[in-house]
Amino acid sequence: MSTVGKSRAVILLSGGLDSCVCLAEAALSHDPCVLHLNYGQRTEARELRAFHDIADHYGIDRRLVVDVSHLAQIGGSSLVDATQPVEQGLPDGGCVPSTYVPFRNANILAVGTSWAEVCGASALFIGAVEEDGSGYPDCTEAFYAAFEAAIDAGTRPETRIRIHTPLISLNKTAIVERGRDLGAPLHLTWSCYVAEDAACGVCESCLLRLRGFAGAGETDPITYK
Amino acid sequence: MSTVGKSRAVILLSGGLDSCVCLAEAALSHDPCVLHLNYGQRTEARELRAFHDIADHYGIDRRLVVDVSHLAQIGGSSLVDATQPVEQGLPDGGCVPSTYVPFRNANILAVGTSWAEVCGASALFIGAVEEDGSGYPDCTEAFYAAFEAAIDAGTRPETRIRIHTPLISLNKTAIVERGRDLGAPLHLTWSCYVAEDAACGVCESCLLRLRGFAGAGETDPITYK
Repeated sequence: MSTVGKSRAVILLSGGLDSCVCLAEAALSHDPCVLHLNYGQRTEARELRAFHDIADHYGIDRRLVVDVSHLAQIGGSSLVDATQPVEQGLPDGGCVPSTYVPFRNANILAVGTSWAEVCGASALFIGAVEEDGSGYPDCTEAFYAAFEAAIDAGTRPETRIRIHTPLISLNKTAIVERGRDLGAPLHLTWSCYVAEDAACGVCESCLLRLRGFAGAGETDPITYK
Repeated sequence: MSTVGKSRAVILLSGGLDSCVCLAEAALSHDPCVLHLNYGQRTEARELRAFHDIADHYGIDRRLVVDVSHLAQIGGSSLVDATQPVEQGLPDGGCVPSTYVPFRNANILAVGTSWAEVCGASALFIGAVEEDGSGYPDCTEAFYAAFEAAIDAGTRPETRIRIHTPLISLNKTAIVERGRDLGAPLHLTWSCYVAEDAACGVCESCLLRLRGFAGAGETDPITYK
């Protein structure tokens, strides 16, 4: 990956399918710095391994892992509260799922912006997807536009950071196809919300992922139970 | 303090003079929940004591202390980096001081919004001050308006959280006068950026505070070295 003459970008890299394809997109035009956030999710250790595996694949040295587990402390979400069950099956569309961490992406973008301003990055990439009926209010184009305006107002006058959401209008099939076409290391990614050894195949995240691979006519290279 | 019939508000309470007066303002109209953030500042332990002392004074049970020390990890600021000296004297106006933690208030507001959405609060109070020449880009009315728009876009459709900045256009003298008139426990507050036993009296924060009390014709009730 050549970074000569490219401006720096911070890429939010959870280690999942979407963030991996987002990094592959970012690397086309920018010199990537990758940021991983632990917000107390069940499968944090497995996701962190995926983060480092993917960064190794791309030869990225500038990595930052940040603990934002106060989101678990604040609670209100089954994803960060071990006493609440994770919903199985696909979202029914329209309503906000119980895995929603209130205003999570704003917390994540705020951290990313702080790091971007310190390291002189001009872009912040996040693999958010508005489609698939996931219903997260902080995964919409309207939210990202509003947050970018807040960045412009709340950072140094000379700082200009654009938020890039290259996957925002894609569905999982299109994301798998784009990742394949860009040569993204999809075999290194992790999406399951429940398990860390082999993916469960039945949680919402696994079902969306499997549907994406099936739609693209591809076999998911990771192991399922 | 009567909370009967009042809607809930989250108040950011660092333990300093400004946040204490902000709480006194908020308590007039809302049922307060107080939020303290440790972002790795030098005087964290002393500020936390001030937070609890002030909350005790008002009889507030709903308190949340959250660690956001990843801002220290990201660095770029003398306030969170022990190897950089804290500037002495008053800011010279215009430029951004070295104590600026990049996009700090956005991180703080994101945490406050997450908690507000979980606990059903309709307001978020922050004692930010645009005046005094402090020069923080994330302390401006323009920034708060932009962030409020991001909250509207990024939270549940039924959530409506307004950001209140009752001190935004006041100088330190007016803040001391307002605190006195509201009976705010200014003797319990802590402002010094450097010391924890007795205030240093020479850092920027001490000088602004002392200037405020002098302007109001009041004696600062805390102990100085």
